[in-house]
Amino acid sequence: MFAACEKIWINAQIASLDSRQPASYGLLTQHALGVSQGLIQNIAPMSAFERARINLNEVEIIDVHGAYLTPGLIDCHTHLIYAGHRAQEFEQRLLGLSYQQIAQQGGGILSTVGATRAASVEQLIELAIPRLKALIAEGVTTLEIKSGYGLDLVTELNILRAARQLAQVFPIRISTTLLGAHALPPDYKNRADAYIDWVCAELIPAAVAENLADAVDVFCEYLAFSPAQTERVLARATDYGLGIHVHAEQLSNQQAATLAASYQAWSADHLEYLDEAGVAAMAKARTVATLLPIAFYFLGETQRPPIDLLRRYQVPMAVATDFNPGTAPLVSLRLAMNMACTLFRLTPEEALAGVTRHAALALGLENKIGQLATGLAADFIVWNIQHPAELAYQVGVNPIKQRVFAGELTYV
Amino acid sequence: MFAACEKIWINAQIASLDSRQPASYGLLTQHALGVSQGLIQNIAPMSAFERARINLNEVEIIDVHGAYLTPGLIDCHTHLIYAGHRAQEFEQRLLGLSYQQIAQQGGGILSTVGATRAASVEQLIELAIPRLKALIAEGVTTLEIKSGYGLDLVTELNILRAARQLAQVFPIRISTTLLGAHALPPDYKNRADAYIDWVCAELIPAAVAENLADAVDVFCEYLAFSPAQTERVLARATDYGLGIHVHAEQLSNQQAATLAASYQAWSADHLEYLDEAGVAAMAKARTVATLLPIAFYFLGETQRPPIDLLRRYQVPMAVATDFNPGTAPLVSLRLAMNMACTLFRLTPEEALAGVTRHAALALGLENKIGQLATGLAADFIVWNIQHPAELAYQVGVNPIKQRVFAGELTYV
Ligand SMILES: [Zn+2]
Ligand SMILES: [Zn+2]
Repeated sequence: MFAACEKIWINAQIASLDSRQPASYGLLTQHALGVSQGLIQNIAPMSAFERARINLNEVEIIDVHGAYLTPGLIDCHTHLIYAGHRAQEFEQRLLGLSYQQIAQQGGGILSTVGATRAASVEQLIELAIPRLKALIAEGVTTLEIKSGYGLDLVTELNILRAARQLAQVFPIRISTTLLGAHALPPDYKNRADAYIDWVCAELIPAAVAENLADAVDVFCEYLAFSPAQTERVLARATDYGLGIHVHAEQLSNQQAATLAASYQAWSADHLEYLDEAGVAAMAKARTVATLLPIAFYFLGETQRPPIDLLRRYQVPMAVATDFNPGTAPLVSLRLAMNMACTLFRLTPEEALAGVTRHAALALGLENKIGQLATGLAADFIVWNIQHPAELAYQVGVNPIKQRVFAGELTYV
Repeated sequence: MFAACEKIWINAQIASLDSRQPASYGLLTQHALGVSQGLIQNIAPMSAFERARINLNEVEIIDVHGAYLTPGLIDCHTHLIYAGHRAQEFEQRLLGLSYQQIAQQGGGILSTVGATRAASVEQLIELAIPRLKALIAEGVTTLEIKSGYGLDLVTELNILRAARQLAQVFPIRISTTLLGAHALPPDYKNRADAYIDWVCAELIPAAVAENLADAVDVFCEYLAFSPAQTERVLARATDYGLGIHVHAEQLSNQQAATLAASYQAWSADHLEYLDEAGVAAMAKARTVATLLPIAFYFLGETQRPPIDLLRRYQVPMAVATDFNPGTAPLVSLRLAMNMACTLFRLTPEEALAGVTRHAALALGLENKIGQLATGLAADFIVWNIQHPAELAYQVGVNPIKQRVFAGELTYV
């Protein structure tokens, strides 16, 4: 009912990404979208809006003159919060130093862990703000943030505390993920099982006690944690009712996606080495395949995720930045969309679904965000574009006219 | 002399890119930079600044507290000015249509030509402004713009008129290039020689008469113009004293770089298929190798330019966006720097020289811009970074503190 709305956007081309709509992009031409109390109250053709009895003193009408609306963008895999600098390491690698030489000089992930441990929650927030603002300016309205650069109790929790605080201050939803099992901290050298014991016995319960984590994640890889170690973390997370993500099959096939699916994971991420059995398991569990083309690009990988198999089994594909200082220092979800098309041959519509409907599914938020439909959050973007394919095609120019978060205009 | 300066930036880490400075990046730590009448008047250690007799009522002192300064960035190869939309063509290709099918539906370069011919100078300017603003916001202070989407007299000149007008309105230097020999217009189908006759006899003289072109360019390729046709354009440009660029060896080796060098070209651009003879010829002529990694990325190329040979022969390497709607719709020079490192294995210092000192050389402007040294233009950026390598490493966050154009603060 438009009459009950506080605000109505009119004359819109609504790329709803609503899978019940038959047109590509779920497109609804010449429609109006009404908002009340932060939610989408009604979407209907302009003819219905024109027939509705609306008290213009009580309803704000926003005429977008034929512009496109899409759901707010969702970056469902980031490591946004960390301290330290890795640019010189990038330079050293290009000057010919090996990973081992760089690690010996104190570089690599443990340099980020050291700097992050030395930072306060306030400092972590300060460092994260420019990165967060860049994503907000691009049209991101929901963001996942992982811990994983603390690897000790206080720092892992501090990262998640910083993430929770950012969501209080900025017009963005933040989904938090405890990635204690990201790497083995130096104090547990050669004692990976003991570290996993600690993650399960101490870290997860402590995060749960403060309600700091919406999900857990594990880096399951030959150079990180084994499938058996991964499974212990997933089982513990399941005990607590947390969501599950897994960094899976990035550098080798560990059957991590199948394992993730057996725990009804929200998502398995990276997936360059995913095989058909893994795809089938994910399809059965409705586990989202989160593709991270920026890391693929930055690492110079050549093995692509099995996109055709994922399509054939109808596994929902999300696209995210994987923003992190080691393997994906490019903070742009629209660049990730372009790379998903250019490097993985997704269509622009698949890329847009990957940062809206499917990214919501990857965060367990499909009943709240990710599509433009009645009852969902009024998080959307009004774009100065000629066609929705433009969002994946052109990067660098920012075509945002309006950014609407929970029904409020937050960016013009 | 600091006493004669209007403004002095103090406590700066000056990454001068001045090749006479021995440190990497031409770094001068704890220096001051004085400006007068739009030019760099003096660069000296802080100790010299402190000894200088300066009347603080007449000189503005800007303390950057240890921040890095670099020359303003230079994007030395763009097709910034055009009308029309190619996003749907991008989508069609990803949906499986062939280039031929897209061309039959009116897509491809000729769709851009049609839309550009239909636009007025004012409309071309309006369309270019968001793209220009994106580059200005990134730290670009000099930009090359090519024609080539008109392919008739009035539109080719209109593109260059639009470029000249943009330079009047925005705080940026613009170098213009007549690329009449970009593609064969439909009205000259199967008559490429006749079209080149017209370019030489009519188009070049008309552009010269209005002082619209600083240089000419030719797309020398099996699917565009032959070396013999290219040479006729270069000879004509030489008659008029214009600078020379050539789109060379992008898709095949046509010995176009050797041809360009034989005309003392400012630059040969793309160069994926360049061979050693071409490298040697370029080295001898001091022709710049302009690398365009975004087009390489967007086209999914696998043949890389011969970077090691270019280094061995000491051919100066520039890096540019090649921004255009068909093969490089990503408007970001810092992304081009990142791709030059990630895809072509340039070092961050080579990438930064590629968008400063060597880009200036590629525009025949090495005596005016591209380095921070006495007598050159006071075009520079004050960066909120920890190390100059960060400019090539992290993309998406904009670390600009100040943008200075001809001595004036234009962006904070
Ligand atoms: Zn990750
Ligand atoms: Zn070009």
